[in-house]
Order: sequence, then C-alpha cells, then structure tokens
Amino acid sequence: MLRQSALVVLSGGQDSTTCLFWAKRHFKYVSALSFRYGQLHENEVEIAREICNEHHIPFSVIDIPFISGLASNSLTDSSVAMDSTKPADGLPNTFVPGRNLFFLSIAAVFAREHGIFDLVTGVGQTDFSGYPDCRDSFIRSLNVSLNLAMDEQFQIHTPLMWLTKAEVWELADELGVFDLVRERTLTCYRGIVGDGCGDCPACKLRREGLEQYLQKRNSKQRDEQF
Amino acid sequence: MLRQSALVVLSGGQDSTTCLFWAKRHFKYVSALSFRYGQLHENEVEIAREICNEHHIPFSVIDIPFISGLASNSLTDSSVAMDSTKPADGLPNTFVPGRNLFFLSIAAVFAREHGIFDLVTGVGQTDFSGYPDCRDSFIRSLNVSLNLAMDEQFQIHTPLMWLTKAEVWELADELGVFDLVRERTLTCYRGIVGDGCGDCPACKLRREGLEQYLQKRNSKQRDEQF
Repeated sequence: MLRQSALVVLSGGQDSTTCLFWAKRHFKYVSALSFRYGQLHENEVEIAREICNEHHIPFSVIDIPFISGLASNSLTDSSVAMDSTKPADGLPNTFVPGRNLFFLSIAAVFAREHGIFDLVTGVGQTDFSGYPDCRDSFIRSLNVSLNLAMDEQFQIHTPLMWLTKAEVWELADELGVFDLVRERTLTCYRGIVGDGCGDCPACKLRREGLEQYLQKRNSKQRDEQF
Repeated sequence: MLRQSALVVLSGGQDSTTCLFWAKRHFKYVSALSFRYGQLHENEVEIAREICNEHHIPFSVIDIPFISGLASNSLTDSSVAMDSTKPADGLPNTFVPGRNLFFLSIAAVFAREHGIFDLVTGVGQTDFSGYPDCRDSFIRSLNVSLNLAMDEQFQIHTPLMWLTKAEVWELADELGVFDLVRERTLTCYRGIVGDGCGDCPACKLRREGLEQYLQKRNSKQRDEQF
C-alpha cells in the first residue's frame, strides 16, 4: 500500500539518491530537500536539483552557512587536509559535527509546514566510519526529540540503515536506477561525479561496494544462463 | 563546589539572564551565546551583549536566518498578528517551531569546539504556554540525542524548569541581580525593555510573577520588622 507523503533529505550522493527512488516506490507524493552548508562541493546541490527536475519531484534548498563556521572539518574548510582513514584517537576530520542533527531537524520543521511527517534519510551504520550521527540509536533518539519538540508524530525512515554498500547498489538496481546512481550522483569528497577520484574514503567505500555487487550480479547472470 | 565551564544560551530576556547569573554562581568559567534568527526585535541581542560585556562574560552571536523562512509565526513575521492567548485548537502563533531544538543543538556543537559540555538554558514548564519545546521531556530527550550525535557527554542544565515566574524573580534576587533583570532585560514580544508593553503574553506572565514576588518580599520584610 502506498503511503501519502514523504520528504527526502537529498545530498545528490549515492545513498540519498537511492533513498529518493525508494521513497517514490513507497509514497504517493515525494519531495526533496537539500542544504547549502558551506560544503566545498556545492555542485552536489545542482546534481540533486537536476535529478529531481527530471523526475518531477518538488525540490527545495535551504542555506545554512552557520554550519561551516561552527567547527573545523575538511569538508567545509579547504585548508584542512582530509583524513583518508579513521584516526585511532578519534573521529576523522571529514566529520561535520551535528550535520545530520541539523539536516533532520530543519527537514522536520520544513516538512511539518507542508503537512508532511515522514522523513527519509540515507544514513546507515555500515557507512559509519566513526560518524556517530549515522547510527540507528541517534536517529531513533532524534525522532523522539523531534516529536517532543513540536508535539507531532514524525517518522524518520532509514532504508539503508543496515545495508552494506553492495546492498545499496543492489537496491538501486531493484528500483531501476542503477545507471542513474552510478553515473549521475556525487559521493566523492573531492567533488568528482560518478566514479569519483577513486582515492578518498567515500570513493573507496563506494567502489568496493560496487565491485562486490557487480560480482554478485555477474555470477547470478552466469547461473541463469546455464 | 564550583564546576568548570558552562555555555549559557542567552536571549537577553528575564529567564536566560537569570540563568546567566545562576551559571556564574555554579561554574568557574561562563560564556554566553545568542542567536540572530530573524526575530523582529534584534535589539535583544545587543542587550545580551551589553550585560555580558559589563560582567566580563565572553559573548558570541550566531546568525541563523533560515529559521524565519521555515515556518510562519508572529515573532519573526510582522505581517502575522500576534495571538495574545493560546488558541483552543493548537499552539499560539508566537511558537517558532524548532527554535529551542536549533538553539541547543547549535550551542552544543559550538560548546564542544570550545571544550565545554555543560549547557544552560532558561526554558521552563511553567512558561509552557503550549510550547512543547520548553518541556522537561523534550530537553531530556534532546540531551540524549546530542550525546549520541557527537558521542559526547553533554549536560543541559535548566535551573528554571520547575519554577513559577514569581520564583524566577526570587532567584534573581537571591543572585543579587533583581534590579538588573527588572530594568535591563527584554521579555516583551513588542521589543520594549524592562517592564515592557504590559499587554503581550510575555509581559503579562512577567508582571504577574513580579507582583507575586514583590508581595511575598514585602510581607517577609514586614514580618522581620516586628
């Protein structure tokens, strides 16, 4: 059964774009929200907008430049050299403190104004890399906080929470958007669309998942031929 | 025993200013954070700054204009006529959805950057007026969400949570800042410092509390004279 309306927090990356089409499968009306938060690669917002326009999905952008001023990190400050692995003593400097907290909180207020109470986000524990705000426990806690903050019944949907990157590729394929996600989305921390730079942590995760999934798909196709 | 450091979310109103001096009593290092969020009466930020400057309290302001664009309300939009009482069918239009959620979330990230994990806010249930984000349950839930979002141990302090307005005046008096709070703070929704317009919901609450407390103080002084 199709549910009514959902708002997808969309970055233009692999995960949130896959979630966009997951939402279109499960909800009658889907809209999307992106943020300009001082990220070095703001073209991800235009990528998100183009994908939405082509699929007739209402798309909005909210400017929240305060995020880049709050805390130093390599995604909003080009003078910070990017950690390519998780340091033993803490979080990688690609962590933007509070980012998902802000994205989902703003999305909730925005959605409520439009009579929407289902929010969709592409965060997942597999993608963890030490980012605490991608964990299921955080999302569930925030869901309660949002409900209490506004006296509403929001539902935050996290279709990718427990999927590996290979399974996220598989989901995109099932949803009929494998090529779109592969060629059009931007996951790379260096701002290169599609397969990306191949070297940053996000590209490595994405490529390893893709290779695993392609191997699985190929062996399945071989099995079917015999 | 004095604790180390606290960040006070300061609006320049009666409640948060009282909390500022509560924090100075309980913490060795106190700093304050205000927000410009498109409120009609931005002079509250300058009031907060002046009070901090006079008391040598480090003071910062963060601009978050996105809040006024998110949802219609009478505190950020002069074309919306202000509800003077709580409507039977919902929240008064002085409710800025998500305001305390945003203030405290931003304060937490800001504090963490400065090695501070104690946050102080002037919200209280007595002040409820139907604002869900002033309730204890919301604050406790958000505290957990903030901890999970950043993998830290924040403590949100709400010294006024269970006080009546009269008791908030009493606290200011105990802290030696009764006159300062009475004459210098801005609570009025119409932007008038001190005793305010006398007519808006915030002024009424403030005045009723003041009268109750003055009555109590006067009768106590009379008792002591005999």
